[in-house]
Amino acid sequence: MNQAYPPHPALPEALADALSHRFGNRFAASQAVRDLHGRDESVHPAAAPDAVIFAESTEDVAETVRLCREHGIPVIPFGAGSSVEGHFLAIRGGICIDLTRMDRVVAIHAEDLDATVQPGVTRKQLNAELHDTGLFFPIDPGADATLGGMAATRASGTNAVRYGTMRENVLGMTVVLADGRIIRTGGRAKKSSAGYDLTRLFIGSEGTLGIITELTVKLYPVPEAISSAVCAFPSVDAAVDAVIQTIQLGVPVARIELLDALTIAAVNRYSKTTLKEAPTLFFEFHGSPSGVEEQATLVQELAASHGGMDFEWATRPEDRNRLWQARHDAYFACLQLKPGSRAFPTDVCVPISRLAECIRATNEDIARSTIPIPLFGHVGDGNFHLVVLIDPANPQEVAEAERINHAVVERALAMEGTCTGEHGVGIGKQKFLVAEHGEGAVDVMRALKQALDPDNLLNPGKILP
Amino acid sequence: MNQAYPPHPALPEALADALSHRFGNRFAASQAVRDLHGRDESVHPAAAPDAVIFAESTEDVAETVRLCREHGIPVIPFGAGSSVEGHFLAIRGGICIDLTRMDRVVAIHAEDLDATVQPGVTRKQLNAELHDTGLFFPIDPGADATLGGMAATRASGTNAVRYGTMRENVLGMTVVLADGRIIRTGGRAKKSSAGYDLTRLFIGSEGTLGIITELTVKLYPVPEAISSAVCAFPSVDAAVDAVIQTIQLGVPVARIELLDALTIAAVNRYSKTTLKEAPTLFFEFHGSPSGVEEQATLVQELAASHGGMDFEWATRPEDRNRLWQARHDAYFACLQLKPGSRAFPTDVCVPISRLAECIRATNEDIARSTIPIPLFGHVGDGNFHLVVLIDPANPQEVAEAERINHAVVERALAMEGTCTGEHGVGIGKQKFLVAEHGEGAVDVMRALKQALDPDNLLNPGKILP
Repeated sequence: MNQAYPPHPALPEALADALSHRFGNRFAASQAVRDLHGRDESVHPAAAPDAVIFAESTEDVAETVRLCREHGIPVIPFGAGSSVEGHFLAIRGGICIDLTRMDRVVAIHAEDLDATVQPGVTRKQLNAELHDTGLFFPIDPGADATLGGMAATRASGTNAVRYGTMRENVLGMTVVLADGRIIRTGGRAKKSSAGYDLTRLFIGSEGTLGIITELTVKLYPVPEAISSAVCAFPSVDAAVDAVIQTIQLGVPVARIELLDALTIAAVNRYSKTTLKEAPTLFFEFHGSPSGVEEQATLVQELAASHGGMDFEWATRPEDRNRLWQARHDAYFACLQLKPGSRAFPTDVCVPISRLAECIRATNEDIARSTIPIPLFGHVGDGNFHLVVLIDPANPQEVAEAERINHAVVERALAMEGTCTGEHGVGIGKQKFLVAEHGEGAVDVMRALKQALDPDNLLNPGKILP
Repeated sequence: MNQAYPPHPALPEALADALSHRFGNRFAASQAVRDLHGRDESVHPAAAPDAVIFAESTEDVAETVRLCREHGIPVIPFGAGSSVEGHFLAIRGGICIDLTRMDRVVAIHAEDLDATVQPGVTRKQLNAELHDTGLFFPIDPGADATLGGMAATRASGTNAVRYGTMRENVLGMTVVLADGRIIRTGGRAKKSSAGYDLTRLFIGSEGTLGIITELTVKLYPVPEAISSAVCAFPSVDAAVDAVIQTIQLGVPVARIELLDALTIAAVNRYSKTTLKEAPTLFFEFHGSPSGVEEQATLVQELAASHGGMDFEWATRPEDRNRLWQARHDAYFACLQLKPGSRAFPTDVCVPISRLAECIRATNEDIARSTIPIPLFGHVGDGNFHLVVLIDPANPQEVAEAERINHAVVERALAMEGTCTGEHGVGIGKQKFLVAEHGEGAVDVMRALKQALDPDNLLNPGKILP
């Protein structure tokens, strides 16, 4: 099954025995379990690990890392499995550490607006457990990802325009290092200048520098008033111009999302909505009742001045949830545009002043392609996705998707943007790392990897080209 | 003059010649210039560098680093000189790179809400240059520090409660590495998950991992309405309780500062204000006119419920500026409480729920001391300072200040806080680093230092114990 990747040594019997002895039936080497842990949402060929450990504690993770290290075998952390960049594919074999059983909310410090969780807690689960506190955790990448996975990939999503990404929302972590040592980074103070920022070093490191086994995240008071709206525009350009002006005026929108006409068509079909099939912005406003009204009025005026029509409001929680569920399902809705297809997603992010130009040129790429390519994204941050719908068995389509991705990334980099706003590097974005950061910066990343994982056993083959 | 620190080898003549040849009169080895670069605002004994280079470009910095490296001589970056933790004291000798001539605002991207600056640009200078753009840079540590120095120490200050610290406000940097290579970190996209977060690694690294020679910082629209106020309270406890409630309710205050009665007395004398000599909160609100009014009304009610009296408002810019100038001068005002004294500042930061308890216990330390010790700080973040006023020539007073600092730090760490919220580690806080982070995390910091500066030539003897 792993023929797409170079061959790698088999799992040493002694290691299998040691893990089996230590973990009993929480050590699994059946083909079914391995396959489940070797396939993500991406187009990258599957690559099953040699076995899976279902960890239940930091000590379980540390012990697994120590045993694997003795045998020179890779370890790969696994969360919700919702990666779109091949993050946890076992391309060099090894042991997958499934963290989903570490799903306990360890502590909610409502008075300090933070919560400490195990890495397998998902964002929806945390918000459910926060239900009676008047607080919420805002980062929302769409998928019900685990917080450990979200930290490891520096995830963000729809609310980032107001609340930031995982980079800004983790106060501290427990991390298992490559030699099995357990460290704590950060703390619970809101700010600190006490030494190197290890927390931010592990955030976005995709399991290549350490394995996150606990994290403390920031919480926010549930806004007194929340209001959502959709608004159709005569063109993508007009919609993007309305976004740019909103951001430049400093309106503290909580969400501002673009869906192009093709995406809206897909959403209507998939989610049984009746949205006008035109480029559309989804908004959400958070604040006091008068603050929300003030923001909404201003944004409505801005939208109208760019031809925005028919602001449709959703203020009741069930209407808002329906709206945002439809937005979150856009990815799956798009997949239905071409039954049997897989999504090859792009993920560029550019300075907001270049966004209109970037999307305009990208739409020319789309127009020239024979593949259906919906476009949507977190435009308030300058971040948007194409979902290039391909048959992975069709080499022409794969090549076409690669070509489009290259073109979009090169354009974003020329605009001082990034090849990946929120999906991470994984396997797919490695080839752009030097173009984005330069050889020198990538060399520094290599030096950090060498310093913290000299045997290259933590999720090898990811991030660094 | 450097007898307080271990002796170090003299400047090799060949290096002095090479630097002099390369930099002409921008190489200075006179005692006066060296002394000016070997003394900060702290109580740490002065330690002059062997010579000073006045850099005017990234290439100047890189060339200096390369030449020093050839001779195994330390390099120490220098900004405004406003450190209170001995950051740039040349305790092992070496070459000081004065960056203050790199004071050009390279680009203002008003439409993207960011600016790229050289490291010697000060925050006031940047805000002056932003004057006609409708934008401002919020981070405000009081001193008119350079942005390079602020990034290197992960500075924050009065506005951090709303706008975050330097950690959240730098998008990317140019950095000279220990071997003289020049790298770029980050970029201009608002978010990215493209590899390890080198930007955050260098922020707060105090010149020990690389020298920042350019940085791109976030800007914010000047709020439509700004309103400041002062309010006296019957006790520090009452004032702190009002702060805690304000934060827990999620009121987006821009500034919320505590000054105790002794600090107010000092301020009145120094700044010719006539504030009531009682524990006092200074507030600032940013937003739309109605938003500011809403926040102000709510906070006034909260304050009143804790005995807050006589909200005095300042809405005209000149009145606000006078108020905040008085706040910023508090440090110097305090020094005048004991003429000829030096300040030994503490800088703990704790989770907000522990703030009242932490300050209460600290006030008992203060009450037991014979030294005058004003207390003030950025209480919205859980961060406060003592200014222990000592005669550095009096060993009893130095010991007493050390004792109080120890007690305050131990208390903060027991409350899951930090030994330094914003001043940095420098020399003074090294002894607390293991207690705060644990041996393992400090070992990781050492591994990072070893990876990026194997010869220990970048600001040696700082941060790591």
